[in-house]
Amino acid sequence: MIIVIQCRDQVGLVASISALMSKHQYNIISLGEHVDVAENLFFMRLEVAGDTVSPDLEQELQSILPADAVIKINPQPDKKVVVLVTKEYHCLADILIRNYFGTLGATVQCVIGNYTVLEDICKRFDVPFHHVSYETQDKLQAEQHITQLVQQYDPHYIVLAKFMRILSADFNKYFPMRIINIHHSFLPAFVGANPYRKAFERGVKLIGATAHFVSDELDEGPIIAQQIIPVNHTYTAATMMNAGKEVETSVLAQALKLVFDDRVFVYNNKTVIIE
Amino acid sequence: MIIVIQCRDQVGLVASISALMSKHQYNIISLGEHVDVAENLFFMRLEVAGDTVSPDLEQELQSILPADAVIKINPQPDKKVVVLVTKEYHCLADILIRNYFGTLGATVQCVIGNYTVLEDICKRFDVPFHHVSYETQDKLQAEQHITQLVQQYDPHYIVLAKFMRILSADFNKYFPMRIINIHHSFLPAFVGANPYRKAFERGVKLIGATAHFVSDELDEGPIIAQQIIPVNHTYTAATMMNAGKEVETSVLAQALKLVFDDRVFVYNNKTVIIE
Amino acid sequence: MIIVIQCRDQVGLVASISALMSKHQYNIISLGEHVDVAENLFFMRLEVAGDTVSPDLEQELQSILPADAVIKINPQPDKKVVVLVTKEYHCLADILIRNYFGTLGATVQCVIGNYTVLEDICKRFDVPFHHVSYETQDKLQAEQHITQLVQQYDPHYIVLAKFMRILSADFNKYFPMRIINIHHSFLPAFVGANPYRKAFERGVKLIGATAHFVSDELDEGPIIAQQIIPVNHTYTAATMMNAGKEVETSVLAQALKLVFDDRVFVYNNKTVIIE
Amino acid sequence: MIIVIQCRDQVGLVASISALMSKHQYNIISLGEHVDVAENLFFMRLEVAGDTVSPDLEQELQSILPADAVIKINPQPDKKVVVLVTKEYHCLADILIRNYFGTLGATVQCVIGNYTVLEDICKRFDVPFHHVSYETQDKLQAEQHITQLVQQYDPHYIVLAKFMRILSADFNKYFPMRIINIHHSFLPAFVGANPYRKAFERGVKLIGATAHFVSDELDEGPIIAQQIIPVNHTYTAATMMNAGKEVETSVLAQALKLVFDDRVFVYNNKTVIIE
Repeated sequence: MIIVIQCRDQVGLVASISALMSKHQYNIISLGEHVDVAENLFFMRLEVAGDTVSPDLEQELQSILPADAVIKINPQPDKKVVVLVTKEYHCLADILIRNYFGTLGATVQCVIGNYTVLEDICKRFDVPFHHVSYETQDKLQAEQHITQLVQQYDPHYIVLAKFMRILSADFNKYFPMRIINIHHSFLPAFVGANPYRKAFERGVKLIGATAHFVSDELDEGPIIAQQIIPVNHTYTAATMMNAGKEVETSVLAQALKLVFDDRVFVYNNKTVIIE
Repeated sequence: MIIVIQCRDQVGLVASISALMSKHQYNIISLGEHVDVAENLFFMRLEVAGDTVSPDLEQELQSILPADAVIKINPQPDKKVVVLVTKEYHCLADILIRNYFGTLGATVQCVIGNYTVLEDICKRFDVPFHHVSYETQDKLQAEQHITQLVQQYDPHYIVLAKFMRILSADFNKYFPMRIINIHHSFLPAFVGANPYRKAFERGVKLIGATAHFVSDELDEGPIIAQQIIPVNHTYTAATMMNAGKEVETSVLAQALKLVFDDRVFVYNNKTVIIE
Repeated sequence: MIIVIQCRDQVGLVASISALMSKHQYNIISLGEHVDVAENLFFMRLEVAGDTVSPDLEQELQSILPADAVIKINPQPDKKVVVLVTKEYHCLADILIRNYFGTLGATVQCVIGNYTVLEDICKRFDVPFHHVSYETQDKLQAEQHITQLVQQYDPHYIVLAKFMRILSADFNKYFPMRIINIHHSFLPAFVGANPYRKAFERGVKLIGATAHFVSDELDEGPIIAQQIIPVNHTYTAATMMNAGKEVETSVLAQALKLVFDDRVFVYNNKTVIIE
Repeated sequence: MIIVIQCRDQVGLVASISALMSKHQYNIISLGEHVDVAENLFFMRLEVAGDTVSPDLEQELQSILPADAVIKINPQPDKKVVVLVTKEYHCLADILIRNYFGTLGATVQCVIGNYTVLEDICKRFDVPFHHVSYETQDKLQAEQHITQLVQQYDPHYIVLAKFMRILSADFNKYFPMRIINIHHSFLPAFVGANPYRKAFERGVKLIGATAHFVSDELDEGPIIAQQIIPVNHTYTAATMMNAGKEVETSVLAQALKLVFDDRVFVYNNKTVIIE
């Protein structure tokens, strides 16, 4: 059983929580805890042996924790996700493979693409594909169509697997801290469009990718994971882009695993990740 | 205040330890804990605010922990080390610099070298240097001389900073898990002499270094830290050795920091490192 | 056009080769060259603009190079591969995805598995799958069946994508330096079976994977690529294995790209990789 | 002997250069070459056996190369550097150590500090230290003093080893592409002051450092080397800064080695590094 707790910090929290576990004879397999001293905030992820949740457990936890405590017991054991894509296959294919073999930690309900090039790969894995064109309709209409599809599937998370359109603030607010994007640079460097072109022009010796939750500000949401690879003068913007696809795939997979494992807490536009 | 605990695992350990902290009004700044489920062992490192140790604390901890518990409260706040070297300067110089600027986490009492080439750098930092030749006397005599010097300084740890002689099992037993060696390969690859030559001959694409506690078996002691760097066909054994010096320096510094910060636990010829 | 040359070194090789390119008005896009001074060997990979190969080019090259020169002009532009697997999907799936999207640099002709668990994923990509059981027949018979299939497809390379059976020296000799294996450790550490179990028991702080050509000696062939990831005391042999799958997938993909791009030269049980 | 060439690209350059080497019976040990196809620029670094330079070599090279060719034969075999520092010791100490043991690839002529805290470490290595206060005089006066010292020593390069003052555009123009700075972030992220504070506030999962030539625009000059290390939510701005010091030291050492080895070419505000 997994228990995650986020609340104001106070003396004795670990003691009272673990005493409660002890009272229920729940043996603690792993206890990850973080205190942000400056902000006086407490974060905990507990893994205890067994899956039988005592019906009173949440209420008992609430009674020993500060009033603001957010407690999740076995959060979303069967996570569902909708994936948005454009034309690039690498992140989507990696997700579909893990989904097919049962190692994603969530189930892909459908893929929504603003082009049809990735329809066939979805079909090969029996995953529904919906085409929402941004060319035969305006951005507002397209987004309404996406919203309608997402509402129909009602996923826990939306994954932007190289979806090259910017979603409106309205859309993002509707799914706060539930949209995960992969941006093809090590943020905050190269926000916005064409990061590889900008990286090439700046002459950097590293390129990278960043998986983050989407917030109102473009590429400014809480960062979940970042990775880089070395590059040099022999790279063009195009070969940087190709090399970058490998790191984009890897960092998105890493971030999804952390999120789907209930290891990611969000506050102050940052993440706490308890591994 | 730092408290480290190692004992048999049982239900409720975290609860009772943190309740005790809470009773003393010690606010927990960081709590790192590990359970080896297979071996039923419990490891904890606590950092609590303030440095005033209640005189009863150790006894109180003992009373709530299993009988085999090893408890250390503020272990060795003023750690002392003796460093053994041969001819290569890179690890020693890094240690002397950190020692001089007060960032080593320990005090270098003296350096013992089986050659004199590193005497001058020690003098420049006002660190005593002792020459123990393996050429004007036999190995047994040399080691007796080293033993005598070490006994005189009575250090908490002995650091083999590229000491290219093998210490006898007798010497090692005298300082169990208190001798830290840097080996110039990613163990267990290339045990023993000339690892860069062997790496070159095998055509590896990575070389590395390993900091470990010394045990009776050559290069078989508990590993504290390992790092690697990429190499390729343009490297000779000599250029591998030069490149490797950077990683040796870095990995030894990392390991010493972990040990001197009381973050390293040893059991079953392995380390638990609570960061 | 790609030209690769391997021969004895002598003064003036670069001059005469590039003069010949100049004479043909072939503009050199990239020239990668390596000399093993100790062995007196010369390696070159040339990329020149245009794909029209003058019919005399090979003979002209031969006339200006030492008699032992091995020259390849546009080697195997349509490379074909046969992939051998057991039960683990990660390397195979990555290869199938790249094959499907045309970014592998070669065409997968078929997959041969000693179990049928990976048959479905192959079918989804319309790649023929052949089951060769090692349980209903002995090893010799199974290998004869594999040999017969390989002869039928006549591939340029055979990829062992987590094929957990050891092929006989006879099989290997039949395809010298044309069989690429992924081994789940940073060789030469943990040769043979169960490397993650051995890594766990040794308490290493890094695990890795190695892609290499297969030779007569188990896990002793020329290394093409190696990568590592950090691990710590919280890993079991099982979680090391899971984490290792990511690096196995990545390092095999890297090695295949290098081989299929004609960047890998082999000699003295080592590789020269001209990037 | 090392020869570096930078010029417009044209067909046959490698051929004619290597033919000239061949004519002089200079055996080529390593030939590194890069063509920027988009900009039509050619870069070459040659290492040939022996150190006897034929007196006509430069003229002969000039005669076979485009008129704009910049040719350097054995550039600055005895490089001299002046190091500017403020209070942090880590980069300076690393440079002093390498200087003392003869592995820096250049000679430190003096250290100029705007505080005196690093005077003692310089004295211990018999390296002159000059104090130029920014507090007892205004910025213009301080910079004039630095300029006068630099003119007196006439170094090939100036190294800003955590010099926390911004030099004026006038100063920089006086030493174009000869001032090497270490900036404590992976540029272009976190330009300017307090990068670790900004990194902490942004919640990045990587921090890094960048060694670059100084240009008129703050932190916008050509990048020589970049490295990163992973961080997480347990880091404060202060612990990021401490961890960052290790990577700053490492990346500045890497950049200096490349520059002092004559491997770094500059154009278009970028570097070509021929390793």
